[in-house]
Amino acid sequence: MRPIHEIIKERPWLGWVLFIGTAVIVFMLGLLASSVVERRAEAIFAYTPQLTFPQFEPDNAVWGEYFPRQYESYLRTSQTDFRSRHGGSVLVDMLEEYPAFVILWAGYPFSIDYRQGRGHYYAMEDLYNSLRPGSPGPGKPSPLPNTCWTCKSSDVPGLMNEIGIAEFYRGTWDTKGSRVVNPMGCVDCHDSRTMNLTITRPALVEAFESMGKDITRATHQEMRSLVCAQCHVEYYFNDQIEEGVQYLVLPWRDGLSVEDIEYYFDSMEFSDWTHGLSRAPLLKAQHPDYEIYLTGTHAARGVSCADCHMPFISEGGLKFTDHHMQSPLNNITNSCQVCHREDTERLLKDVYSRQDKIHESRKVLEDNLVRAHIEAQKAWELGATEEEMEEILYDIRSAQWRWDFAAAGHGNSFHSPVETGRIISLGIGIAQEARIKLARVLASYGYIGEVPLPDISTKAKAQSYIGLDMERKEAEKKVFLEEVLPQWLRGEEDDR
Amino acid sequence: MRPIHEIIKERPWLGWVLFIGTAVIVFMLGLLASSVVERRAEAIFAYTPQLTFPQFEPDNAVWGEYFPRQYESYLRTSQTDFRSRHGGSVLVDMLEEYPAFVILWAGYPFSIDYRQGRGHYYAMEDLYNSLRPGSPGPGKPSPLPNTCWTCKSSDVPGLMNEIGIAEFYRGTWDTKGSRVVNPMGCVDCHDSRTMNLTITRPALVEAFESMGKDITRATHQEMRSLVCAQCHVEYYFNDQIEEGVQYLVLPWRDGLSVEDIEYYFDSMEFSDWTHGLSRAPLLKAQHPDYEIYLTGTHAARGVSCADCHMPFISEGGLKFTDHHMQSPLNNITNSCQVCHREDTERLLKDVYSRQDKIHESRKVLEDNLVRAHIEAQKAWELGATEEEMEEILYDIRSAQWRWDFAAAGHGNSFHSPVETGRIISLGIGIAQEARIKLARVLASYGYIGEVPLPDISTKAKAQSYIGLDMERKEAEKKVFLEEVLPQWLRGEEDDR
Repeated sequence: MRPIHEIIKERPWLGWVLFIGTAVIVFMLGLLASSVVERRAEAIFAYTPQLTFPQFEPDNAVWGEYFPRQYESYLRTSQTDFRSRHGGSVLVDMLEEYPAFVILWAGYPFSIDYRQGRGHYYAMEDLYNSLRPGSPGPGKPSPLPNTCWTCKSSDVPGLMNEIGIAEFYRGTWDTKGSRVVNPMGCVDCHDSRTMNLTITRPALVEAFESMGKDITRATHQEMRSLVCAQCHVEYYFNDQIEEGVQYLVLPWRDGLSVEDIEYYFDSMEFSDWTHGLSRAPLLKAQHPDYEIYLTGTHAARGVSCADCHMPFISEGGLKFTDHHMQSPLNNITNSCQVCHREDTERLLKDVYSRQDKIHESRKVLEDNLVRAHIEAQKAWELGATEEEMEEILYDIRSAQWRWDFAAAGHGNSFHSPVETGRIISLGIGIAQEARIKLARVLASYGYIGEVPLPDISTKAKAQSYIGLDMERKEAEKKVFLEEVLPQWLRGEEDDR
Repeated sequence: MRPIHEIIKERPWLGWVLFIGTAVIVFMLGLLASSVVERRAEAIFAYTPQLTFPQFEPDNAVWGEYFPRQYESYLRTSQTDFRSRHGGSVLVDMLEEYPAFVILWAGYPFSIDYRQGRGHYYAMEDLYNSLRPGSPGPGKPSPLPNTCWTCKSSDVPGLMNEIGIAEFYRGTWDTKGSRVVNPMGCVDCHDSRTMNLTITRPALVEAFESMGKDITRATHQEMRSLVCAQCHVEYYFNDQIEEGVQYLVLPWRDGLSVEDIEYYFDSMEFSDWTHGLSRAPLLKAQHPDYEIYLTGTHAARGVSCADCHMPFISEGGLKFTDHHMQSPLNNITNSCQVCHREDTERLLKDVYSRQDKIHESRKVLEDNLVRAHIEAQKAWELGATEEEMEEILYDIRSAQWRWDFAAAGHGNSFHSPVETGRIISLGIGIAQEARIKLARVLASYGYIGEVPLPDISTKAKAQSYIGLDMERKEAEKKVFLEEVLPQWLRGEEDDR
């Protein structure tokens, strides 16, 4: 065969053909490469179906037919084999682990039963099984208002829409137990028409209003935290808003810090309960996760809850949000390591080191609060007056509020260790004030020396000390689980 | 002119000439580009002179002739107009700002005078002027050993080399004041032959040995922190090592944490002084900067002291280490922003937020320690026995150690806010124990109720409360500055 340059020398137009031909082929290769990289675009066209289910569909499985990946990952919130520093993995009994909690919550249901939360999948099941909310029996109403269901079930948005917010909250569990049965799910965070993130719990919208803000102006990235903040926040039940209704309120009017919320509760003279030993008018912090998160480094860098707890994953050509909400420590590759180029072991060590340091301080506060309650109990026994005790009880309230705010949040000691440490430090200082004043009161009644601690080395001993009849509570729960709950789950109204 | 392709058609060799010629030109362009980018290489050849000064040359200006950029930047440590949150910029009087410190240090020289440090440039000048180290007069020896000079002057390496380590430490200021006159500088961190970083202070080498480590195995990056750790550490003077010598020791044998070092001092029953009011056998933390830094995020990421406090800068074709050691907040562009892509304001806010939170807790600890000292003083007045007070005084020692460890370091609340917060929390808990026990002791002597605090609202009032004769101290200092110091600076021996 003759060399190509000789052929071209004879037929110059052939050179042009080769040149232009090459250009065209390279252009087509570019198109192909782009098409390969952007193949997700095809997926969108291929897999977006017309939705045919109702606006407030509570059944996650129905949504799952249209969004199988998200649904399948959501179902993995049923997994309970996650990494746990406590060794155990399923429903760690926090009172068994920290019997001091029983004393701190004497007179409040948390002293009865408090277990580590499991995934959203178990939101209803764990509530049914817990001894904490008590047990409605046949013909015996629940001690708890329907307000408690608000953060547990995907039936809530529909029911609220149907009967109104206050009417939803009205009454006790037994009156709506048959209508609130599905655990948290799709409809709680998604608009069923656009799939956009949406706020379905009015308390958060109202809390924004109380601060003079408009939640509808939140950006998409903010929404990736705010849908979580519908429930993972500090809240209380206000009975002054609607006659006979325990209305769900986030106490954010004066700000979101531990001091702001304390000021809010103080100025309305609110307390959740009176302590069984010290008679202090206490506040129970719920789980101020969002409030504490906001004070941390990740929030400051614009990282949302979903970025770490629901990181993007890829399956085939599709990149989607992992709906297996869980500890990022269980998925360091997709969460932490997207930004942090350190190896897994080092990242874990970092997290644990923060947690350990905070836990060490928290323990000091806990010990002092337990002693303060026991010492106050002693002071009452010796005949201390309301006047002598007033300031002391307020100090105990204030210190325990700080302890609970720091301890109750999920992940506070990681989300914002410096703020959490600050809160605990101040709590220790205040608990100290209470105990020094108590030492003086006790001395004025002739009691000098250390008030001995009762034996509270186990949950059972601590519960017995504060006078709980656990056998009765367990028997009542058995009746509820065997007789009442099956009715609810069949959607049947209570017999009464 | 005829088109080039027609010419080439006639003379095919011309095509080859054009092709090869182009390749050669492009290659040369590459060489040129590389040469422009790498022009620093020329600088190295052009500016590396043969050094002619002695191995332990103490005069920074002599080194400066060979390394003008480093020297000029070192000279900027004389600048005192740095960013200060206290408003002032020069030698902030910490006792004026925190009169409580006077009470905490009653009986110890820090209660006399304690000012914010200035740059290395002033290491000697500020020491001369401070009332804290007392004032040698003509014929009157200094109360302080020569060990104190160790971290202040570039004359130290040469003098130690000449007379030996222990002999350097031996005796009081007046005996070596005329030989130690230059402030910290080049020779303190650099080997004058290779310019490599080097450790010139034996205490750090010995501290590594006490931990079973060999400092000569440190990497260059570790050395970029260790040269600072020659002085920015916790230390004490041990009089048991060499007869009549206050030997400088870093108490690291059992580890570097606040608990490890406390254990070290406890096990040798060491105390720096007995408190003037409470009679507690106290420890004075120096500045455990390096120890706390090691527990923080930056150390965990391999960032050295020099990376932030002496970042690289460029001048013309040269990139060199800025020897203006200073707060990185004064140079955020070259320090923080090399890694952190946030704007200056946001970074400042981050730092301040950490500092504020830690400061808030530290204040609680301070207040409680002041009260503990005053309450212990009261207990002694009422006739408390050594036995009754022993445990209380140990608690005070332990709590104040934590306070001082957290407070004395430069930048602890930024370098490692979680560890610093932990230390303070535990300190508050221990101070509380002391005060509760004190309330019981006081009550047993019939004193029930709060022990009133004296008026310590200003430095002068606090110093008067602890019985300091400040006028005398100032008069003595005047004599020292006017009569003794000029002799020293002229290199003359003391008259005696």
